Amino acid sequence: MAIDNPFYSPEAQGPYELHSIGRFELEDGGVIPDLQLAVATYGELNEDKSNAILIPTWFSGTHQTWEQVYIGPGRALDPEKYFIIVVNQIGNGLSTSPHNTDDESIAMSKFPKVRIGDDVRAQEQLLRERFGIERLALVVGGSMGAQQTWEWAVRFPEKVLRAAPIAGTAQNTPHDFLFAKTLLDAITSDPGFNAGEYSSPADVAEGLGRHADIWAVMGLSTDFWKTEFWRGVPPVTEGQSWDTFEEFQEQFLRALFRMMDPNALLAMGWKWQRGDVARNAGGDLKEALGRVTAKTFVMPIDSDMFFPPRDSQAEQQLTPGSELRVLHSIAGHFALFGFEESYLAEVDQHLSELLAADVET
Amino acid sequence: MAIDNPFYSPEAQGPYELHSIGRFELEDGGVIPDLQLAVATYGELNEDKSNAILIPTWFSGTHQTWEQVYIGPGRALDPEKYFIIVVNQIGNGLSTSPHNTDDESIAMSKFPKVRIGDDVRAQEQLLRERFGIERLALVVGGSMGAQQTWEWAVRFPEKVLRAAPIAGTAQNTPHDFLFAKTLLDAITSDPGFNAGEYSSPADVAEGLGRHADIWAVMGLSTDFWKTEFWRGVPPVTEGQSWDTFEEFQEQFLRALFRMMDPNALLAMGWKWQRGDVARNAGGDLKEALGRVTAKTFVMPIDSDMFFPPRDSQAEQQLTPGSELRVLHSIAGHFALFGFEESYLAEVDQHLSELLAADVET
Repeated sequence: MAIDNPFYSPEAQGPYELHSIGRFELEDGGVIPDLQLAVATYGELNEDKSNAILIPTWFSGTHQTWEQVYIGPGRALDPEKYFIIVVNQIGNGLSTSPHNTDDESIAMSKFPKVRIGDDVRAQEQLLRERFGIERLALVVGGSMGAQQTWEWAVRFPEKVLRAAPIAGTAQNTPHDFLFAKTLLDAITSDPGFNAGEYSSPADVAEGLGRHADIWAVMGLSTDFWKTEFWRGVPPVTEGQSWDTFEEFQEQFLRALFRMMDPNALLAMGWKWQRGDVARNAGGDLKEALGRVTAKTFVMPIDSDMFFPPRDSQAEQQLTPGSELRVLHSIAGHFALFGFEESYLAEVDQHLSELLAADVET
Repeated sequence: MAIDNPFYSPEAQGPYELHSIGRFELEDGGVIPDLQLAVATYGELNEDKSNAILIPTWFSGTHQTWEQVYIGPGRALDPEKYFIIVVNQIGNGLSTSPHNTDDESIAMSKFPKVRIGDDVRAQEQLLRERFGIERLALVVGGSMGAQQTWEWAVRFPEKVLRAAPIAGTAQNTPHDFLFAKTLLDAITSDPGFNAGEYSSPADVAEGLGRHADIWAVMGLSTDFWKTEFWRGVPPVTEGQSWDTFEEFQEQFLRALFRMMDPNALLAMGWKWQRGDVARNAGGDLKEALGRVTAKTFVMPIDSDMFFPPRDSQAEQQLTPGSELRVLHSIAGHFALFGFEESYLAEVDQHLSELLAADVET
């Protein structure tokens, strides 16, 4: 293992299992000789395998937020009713990633380019081979998880009965590409990054801090900061407290991103920038979205600064039988963290309705 | 002169005059031994000096955009009716600035901290001493120019008959503070910046490029990029053309900011972060805005990502007799550049109405 990073451990992230799906050829030409997917499951698969829900993860995220914030008895994502499988995306630090692979041919700066379509193909293989799941009651994900959700619905329409992309688009926009670029450049411009061959994330602390600062601007919202909403955000680790927005920024986002692996963020960021279901249809977005047969609720967040409702609505209108369900939050894109009960109640209401909807099977 | 930068010249920016107002003591304790303000005027001052309009400048801007885009016969800002004075803000590269001063005590990294209130006091002194102007028919400015407009209306209410802050707030928000920080850190993190003692802006080309990239994300809008609005933006210099959004970004924003002086951007950015009329009233924003007697149109831009209408509306509601006039644009904050005839028509309509409004004199 190139770097032992305690942030990427069951102790920090909650339990998960590694499943190998073997040699995996990537769309951009690279190969992962032994692809390990970090998987967390909740609940039991029923006999006819009709109660499976798949959740792919977002940029910098893991299964943990889903477990802590979205999944639970009585919730829409109820492990007493469903078999919920959260698959950590390739390169996220838990699944095979630049810093955690034993294979020197793909370690650190040599990690190959991975696309959204690679994750979805790998997940499909995992579900089929490991769990015998051929059909999903629901695919739901936020942000890059929404990108994967869209990709699933377009690429494997016969396998996806319902889809709920939250705060993420089927085709990434130029604005999003440029935004992600500022995040990635904040890291690579740090001399400590050393072209990807740093010895520890601490070498890149300044770049990771600038990365976190750009998130503070684009990931949250003017009102989140103006109303000092952060005063009510619970501490990440014991003993934390913040009396000013700058203390919050230092202890929350900067501290969080400084625990992460820079190459993992870069691998995910490159993937995020290029998410595009139209790749399945020769560049024709309308044709690609026209393939969707899942009952789909498109769920942007009203205050999201980089996946705004306008962009999601345009895609929803190209998706047969879909509905637009706008979520409300003061926290911008980072509403996904679940700061607000009202936001979570909205998510649960929409997902419950979607899961109750009759679909052709 | 520390650095000879052709971007800051009458050839590049259009004619202006330097007016010295002598030794100038700054609110934060520093001193500019001989403060030169770069001033461009349009039209003639009438006999009773009742037709003067003041325009302070925005971050990274000069008088040039106002001259080319907003001022003209038949326009609201009509030099055949008004005497229009554009004063370049301190540190903007034309007025006394880190790179252009002959005074080694304040050159480059030694440039003192300047606040919005300093600019407004310097402008007041200039107008009084140089032009004998004691009262302004209108103060209008965009972005940091709006910050100065607000400061004028609060600090010198008896001198401001009408005020039009466009796309800028009276009290800077935490979100805006954090946003400006990402812009400034992009520059200072470049090893070529050398703690402010670079030999040429070219030394800081990478940092200035990252600075421009953050502007591309926050200064424009998702729709500006998604609709490829940039295809209709005229070239900045002859022979330019762009077929992709990345070419546009390289040739337009990156090229533009790479011509600028890094220390000038930092001086303006520090000032922007701390704009706050409440400083005039012991931190009480409501009391400060309650002092405004000018007829005021508060004019945010609907797609502005960092001075959103919501923040402007909150201030407008604290300002006696003011009105909210939201401007419409696809170009976000950079609507200020005047890409759209429809936006300019809206600005002209509101300013014409404001200038026609009866005010107590």
